[in-house]
Amino acid sequence: MTLNEKDIPLAVIRRMTRYYRYLGVLERNGEGKISSQAFAEQLGLTASQVRQDLGSFGAFGHRGFGYEVKILKEKVEEILGLSELKKCILVGAGNLGTAVLSMNYEKLGFHLVAVFDKNPELEGKEIRGHKVYSIDKLEEICEKEIPEAAIICTPSVAVENLATRIYGIGITSFLNFSHYDISILLPDAIVESVHLNDSMMTLRYLMK
Amino acid sequence: MTLNEKDIPLAVIRRMTRYYRYLGVLERNGEGKISSQAFAEQLGLTASQVRQDLGSFGAFGHRGFGYEVKILKEKVEEILGLSELKKCILVGAGNLGTAVLSMNYEKLGFHLVAVFDKNPELEGKEIRGHKVYSIDKLEEICEKEIPEAAIICTPSVAVENLATRIYGIGITSFLNFSHYDISILLPDAIVESVHLNDSMMTLRYLMK
Repeated sequence: MTLNEKDIPLAVIRRMTRYYRYLGVLERNGEGKISSQAFAEQLGLTASQVRQDLGSFGAFGHRGFGYEVKILKEKVEEILGLSELKKCILVGAGNLGTAVLSMNYEKLGFHLVAVFDKNPELEGKEIRGHKVYSIDKLEEICEKEIPEAAIICTPSVAVENLATRIYGIGITSFLNFSHYDISILLPDAIVESVHLNDSMMTLRYLMK
Repeated sequence: MTLNEKDIPLAVIRRMTRYYRYLGVLERNGEGKISSQAFAEQLGLTASQVRQDLGSFGAFGHRGFGYEVKILKEKVEEILGLSELKKCILVGAGNLGTAVLSMNYEKLGFHLVAVFDKNPELEGKEIRGHKVYSIDKLEEICEKEIPEAAIICTPSVAVENLATRIYGIGITSFLNFSHYDISILLPDAIVESVHLNDSMMTLRYLMK
């Protein structure tokens, strides 16, 4: 019996993304199968944790054989929802935004429909194959495209107003690269944050 | 009595970095004090969790008064070790590297001593005030500067060999932006990873 997905802790989902990443490596290397033991060693986990994680979604290996890479990868893809693309926008086409624009969205469950920046010099330019629009066009374009998610790559100072504005359009999911905690401002939004400063400080603490 | 620092879970440290970030906002806004309740509301936690986290390091507020912003910020700075700077290098001066070079290292516990890239066109250029060296100079410069940490901003394909090479020089701490799990390769290293793809996939899952 598989668990109701609502009961799956976020920590399991974060491990699923790591399994998926490693399954991609195995597939590229032409590996046909993987045991829970080998999986665990590669990811610094225990074999029983791997079996439990995958089993909680109904992905079961065979004793003495393990998992078929191709089948398991498809299963994890399905669990994470990667094959059904959600429309998203990216705001802030500076260095971070450009780095983020190099990501392979379509393999990560997203279809990027527009890039916005407030810098008039960037307007109309193409970055990584995406045309940059003025932030003034945000409402107009979003009304047409109906994106569901926004990737925020702007400096912190601008984020508070920007996030509220985007949420007002009806975009309720955010990948937040700013230092600002959007989730406090918009308690009903779905927010996944990447706080680079926090990671830096955590590393500094661990080096004590 | 304060806990032995070895007993502090990493989850508490990650919250400490958020407290620190928010204390910076309060300080810039000229706020003199903050109650554990107001703190909790701003960060989506409970007041008792805030008191417990801060108390575990011996930072106690006063009932009915709260914490003094300036004093608490200094205390968290001390806990995280931010005032004693550790030397670090950055490898990979592309868009992501450039975005990361814009960070305020000296406020985050690090002193950046050199930037490296394998692209000969970048050699000798200045990015965000830092001169870029050829990766061929890695050993020579590190022998002189003795950095303790490396920030990895290179594509995944190159990371496996690069991380081993850097570890071989004696650098044992890593801030890893690549998709590769360095910690598996170097089990004794201190690794803090920022996997952008994983965050993207986690957001996609949460949108289901």
